[in-house]
Amino acid sequence: MTTETLAPAIVDNSEPAGVNNTLRAPISTDGTPELGKTYEVPARMGRAVRVAAGQTIRITNTHGTQVCDMWAFNVNSMNEFLSMEHFRAWVDRVNPQPGDAMVTNHRRPILTFKTDTSPGVHDTLIAPCDIHRYRTLGVEEYHDSCADNLRLALKAIGLRTREVPGSLNLWMNIPFDAQGGIQWQTTVSQPGDYVEFVAVMDCVVVMSSCPQDIIVINSNKPMPVHFTVF
Amino acid sequence: MTTETLAPAIVDNSEPAGVNNTLRAPISTDGTPELGKTYEVPARMGRAVRVAAGQTIRITNTHGTQVCDMWAFNVNSMNEFLSMEHFRAWVDRVNPQPGDAMVTNHRRPILTFKTDTSPGVHDTLIAPCDIHRYRTLGVEEYHDSCADNLRLALKAIGLRTREVPGSLNLWMNIPFDAQGGIQWQTTVSQPGDYVEFVAVMDCVVVMSSCPQDIIVINSNKPMPVHFTVF
Repeated sequence: MTTETLAPAIVDNSEPAGVNNTLRAPISTDGTPELGKTYEVPARMGRAVRVAAGQTIRITNTHGTQVCDMWAFNVNSMNEFLSMEHFRAWVDRVNPQPGDAMVTNHRRPILTFKTDTSPGVHDTLIAPCDIHRYRTLGVEEYHDSCADNLRLALKAIGLRTREVPGSLNLWMNIPFDAQGGIQWQTTVSQPGDYVEFVAVMDCVVVMSSCPQDIIVINSNKPMPVHFTVF
Repeated sequence: MTTETLAPAIVDNSEPAGVNNTLRAPISTDGTPELGKTYEVPARMGRAVRVAAGQTIRITNTHGTQVCDMWAFNVNSMNEFLSMEHFRAWVDRVNPQPGDAMVTNHRRPILTFKTDTSPGVHDTLIAPCDIHRYRTLGVEEYHDSCADNLRLALKAIGLRTREVPGSLNLWMNIPFDAQGGIQWQTTVSQPGDYVEFVAVMDCVVVMSSCPQDIIVINSNKPMPVHFTVF
């Protein structure tokens, strides 16, 4: 085991391109939730919450039209996190369904997908939006992004991720065909649809109410989602 | 910009689970190739090679039956790398085709996919194999893996990656249907089939002759592949 001096802003992707209110509004100092309390992830913002092994997190698509990018990290070892490419290899399927073990980059279950009241349309193929995405869409000033919301939501509770793992994009409607062609469409979920995940290990779950307002995935109008841990 | 002292083995995924000959057999001290020379990536091993902007790398499936996991890093900033989830969002397609820009996690082209003499079956969905994968397959001792070959091939030329990005799995035959079901099959490529990529920025390309010998993707017999930079 060696140590070294590093400039993290240079050698990893932990630094946000800008700041929004995500940094100033954690649900608590260290992200521990009040059990049973419903919290908002405001439109365009992110939130991080600790979910202890055995606890359940419910995430609700309050308005039905919103995509929620989601990540989960082993809170005791932030280099272990929910990984879409490992998940797909684990279940031999592209998209998650209730009953699935959601596995990490170390191929261990971190969450169990328990409940889905929506039609089950979620995405694992597409990277979370980031400042580079908005640059390519012609945005010149700062634009909120799911990647920055992840970084800021973790920073708000004293944590940091070196990388931006591929996200589980709840309710994101990205149909694909057997030839691999991908389309970007509006959600098919209804207001109040929710998903529930049971934590298999102590973890921190991060959610971003996707601020994408240029293409149609959020019906061009980002809205809040809500979550509860119990 | 801040600095800090870190124990890399704790806070990132840069350390291999074991060592194989990849560490001791770089193509040159810093990975610079002799232009026009054909190098071998031995069965079960990995190699890293610097490819300057404008140069072309040709990777040949010498025996036709072999999967080659491939990565590309911006050699001047190793936190920028070819990213499958960003690539799919860039081309609106799951799998790459000649003419595609292969983009990084910063959404910039790092390679251009120029030529493919094989039937075009490659994979972007599945994580590179790692020690955890072989543990779940019942292997108790050390097993060569593409993830470790990446780490070792970089270390052999004095570089390091903090993470193991999702790989471009050349010739890996993972058909999927529109419902998302995934299958694992043998390659459809022929001996001598090759792909060519042109570097858009100075990069280091890492290749691993996938050591998977338990499931059928390499016809249960890992073989070498070859590459040339010109």
